[in-house]
Amino acid sequence: MRLTIDQSDLHAALQVASRAVATRTTLAALSGILLVAEPEQLRLVATDLEMTVEALAPARVQEEGSVILPGRHLAELVRRLPPGEVQLEVDPGHRARLLQHRSRFTLHGMDPAAFPALPRVGAGSTVLFDNAVMRHVLRRTTMAVSTDESRPILTGVSFRVEGDRLEALATDGFRIAASRVTLERPVEGQPVDAVIPGRSLAEVARLLPDEGIGRLILDDTQAGFQLGEVRLISRLLEGTYPRVLDLVPSQYPTRVQVPTRAFQEACERAALLSDTRQAARWLIRLTVEPGRLVVTASDPELGEAREEVPAQVDGEGMTIGFNARYLVDGLKAIDSDEVLFELTDPLKASRLRGVASDDFFYIVLPVKIS
Amino acid sequence: MRLTIDQSDLHAALQVASRAVATRTTLAALSGILLVAEPEQLRLVATDLEMTVEALAPARVQEEGSVILPGRHLAELVRRLPPGEVQLEVDPGHRARLLQHRSRFTLHGMDPAAFPALPRVGAGSTVLFDNAVMRHVLRRTTMAVSTDESRPILTGVSFRVEGDRLEALATDGFRIAASRVTLERPVEGQPVDAVIPGRSLAEVARLLPDEGIGRLILDDTQAGFQLGEVRLISRLLEGTYPRVLDLVPSQYPTRVQVPTRAFQEACERAALLSDTRQAARWLIRLTVEPGRLVVTASDPELGEAREEVPAQVDGEGMTIGFNARYLVDGLKAIDSDEVLFELTDPLKASRLRGVASDDFFYIVLPVKIS
Repeated sequence: MRLTIDQSDLHAALQVASRAVATRTTLAALSGILLVAEPEQLRLVATDLEMTVEALAPARVQEEGSVILPGRHLAELVRRLPPGEVQLEVDPGHRARLLQHRSRFTLHGMDPAAFPALPRVGAGSTVLFDNAVMRHVLRRTTMAVSTDESRPILTGVSFRVEGDRLEALATDGFRIAASRVTLERPVEGQPVDAVIPGRSLAEVARLLPDEGIGRLILDDTQAGFQLGEVRLISRLLEGTYPRVLDLVPSQYPTRVQVPTRAFQEACERAALLSDTRQAARWLIRLTVEPGRLVVTASDPELGEAREEVPAQVDGEGMTIGFNARYLVDGLKAIDSDEVLFELTDPLKASRLRGVASDDFFYIVLPVKIS
Repeated sequence: MRLTIDQSDLHAALQVASRAVATRTTLAALSGILLVAEPEQLRLVATDLEMTVEALAPARVQEEGSVILPGRHLAELVRRLPPGEVQLEVDPGHRARLLQHRSRFTLHGMDPAAFPALPRVGAGSTVLFDNAVMRHVLRRTTMAVSTDESRPILTGVSFRVEGDRLEALATDGFRIAASRVTLERPVEGQPVDAVIPGRSLAEVARLLPDEGIGRLILDDTQAGFQLGEVRLISRLLEGTYPRVLDLVPSQYPTRVQVPTRAFQEACERAALLSDTRQAARWLIRLTVEPGRLVVTASDPELGEAREEVPAQVDGEGMTIGFNARYLVDGLKAIDSDEVLFELTDPLKASRLRGVASDDFFYIVLPVKIS
């Protein structure tokens, strides 16, 4: 294997691939990046067995071949090289030599055969998406993914695609975030009903180009994202995603329309004086009154907060408690200037959605207050 | 106590003062900030008993007075308030009310009498300095301060001022960083010979305005910095700073002149492949040859690095080992394009200094190599 590559191209591809390098692993090959020299390009692959990332960089390949090199060290080394051409040579003993100007590095590589077989996604369904739309969908759902491994299915986002309708939904049992968008083209093949790990989607969000069209291919066990020149393959979570929307109110007799940012900032400030004792952490109280929403919080040691947000109120008033962080997460995901905050009673879930758009809603459970 | 203050002025002053708020303390008053309403200004004071920071903000004071308020919470709250006027009222029970637009906060304060007496620096010596010069002095010495509390005196920087010469020196036993500058005016009062804690100086560096003149006042136990509108008072470290320069070579028969950044970057890259085993961590080898300096490193598992830096060499060649981090720290502190690297033999200290300037030198002990 022998090739010449631009330092900035190699650096960019290594930055992408190194995100998937396993950090804690007993399998030595997984802490490495697989480099494959193909005609006119270098392919870099890293995996932690749950997620595989593949990046391409243009290269002048004098001799094809492949090797596993220590992932983080290679990425850091190339990052620190000055701009310009880098030469990479690998001998039959998997020893790589990296040459540039007055720098020469030898890296002890591994036999590429030690790298796990690359996952292939058999195309059951193909979804084309606008990268900017997918960014919105991910930003609005991944924050509600559960981190509790005792219910693994909730650590992913449920993706359903039927025709040209994509519905993504996540919940951790305290709130539900749901995003529904219309695709420019209907799904090819089977309708999609899959749960993609939140950790993989966080990487997808990072790798999404600003614009252009991306592609998602799914089979029964895996999802493959094509994001510009980068491919990310994630295993799917096994099991059936619970039908959580069946558990929440369908009617919300009290409707409060408020300016989104003012409401968000009022919650954030009040939360600073929310009770710091564990049991009532982040607890804020919302009082719906004619013409306004009052946000209050208190901590016996620190003091009290009281914020008013002007509101158009329709329906009965009430006082209801929330975990401020959950409420703020939902408000941050709403782009409309005005938000509709819909309530039933102080013990039932409430709903947030933008006034100007129906592509997102957010259900949040209240905290019981005395 | 009652006053009106601009949110951005109060925010800026709180950001400064909150840096000195004690993080771990059994004395409740120390986790607070003392606010003193004086004619036309609000004075904010925080201390961790080693260091006291005092900031001023212009204010319309309707009623003078003072109170201790919870430091971090107040700073965070004001940071999140929108721009505009904030009203602050404190009742005789030390309860503070912060009002702005539709926000109202009550903070449980403490009797200002609980705040430790503010240190007063009796002027034994007064040093005027150019803020930009002091920034250079601190950047070039604080990185060599020891973090080992078993020799407390080395956790500070030794400041000596005689006439218009200021010499600052720090060492952790592995390297010595020394900066010597000429002041625009000679010291007023006694010559200075004091050791200021590195932690206090790190704050001074943060608070230093970009330009203008600052003032340092010292007595036998304290140093007071006037930095724009901010005052920082630090206790001095007790004891005599060791005469470490007496222990290093005065003659360096081998002189190597190299481009500073190329040398620094070669060391940084080589260090990535330095031995990761504890005993030889960060070890790089430098070989002085006619016309060049060769930097090498190797790790039995990862591989080897070899970097060449073109050099003008005067004197005998040799191979000498260094801890890469110490060498890089010194090179970073040198602003000249070319650095003079002066050596005696592989077991004695070497010296770094800029070719174009004599206001800084850096002594670094070698690591014995087999």
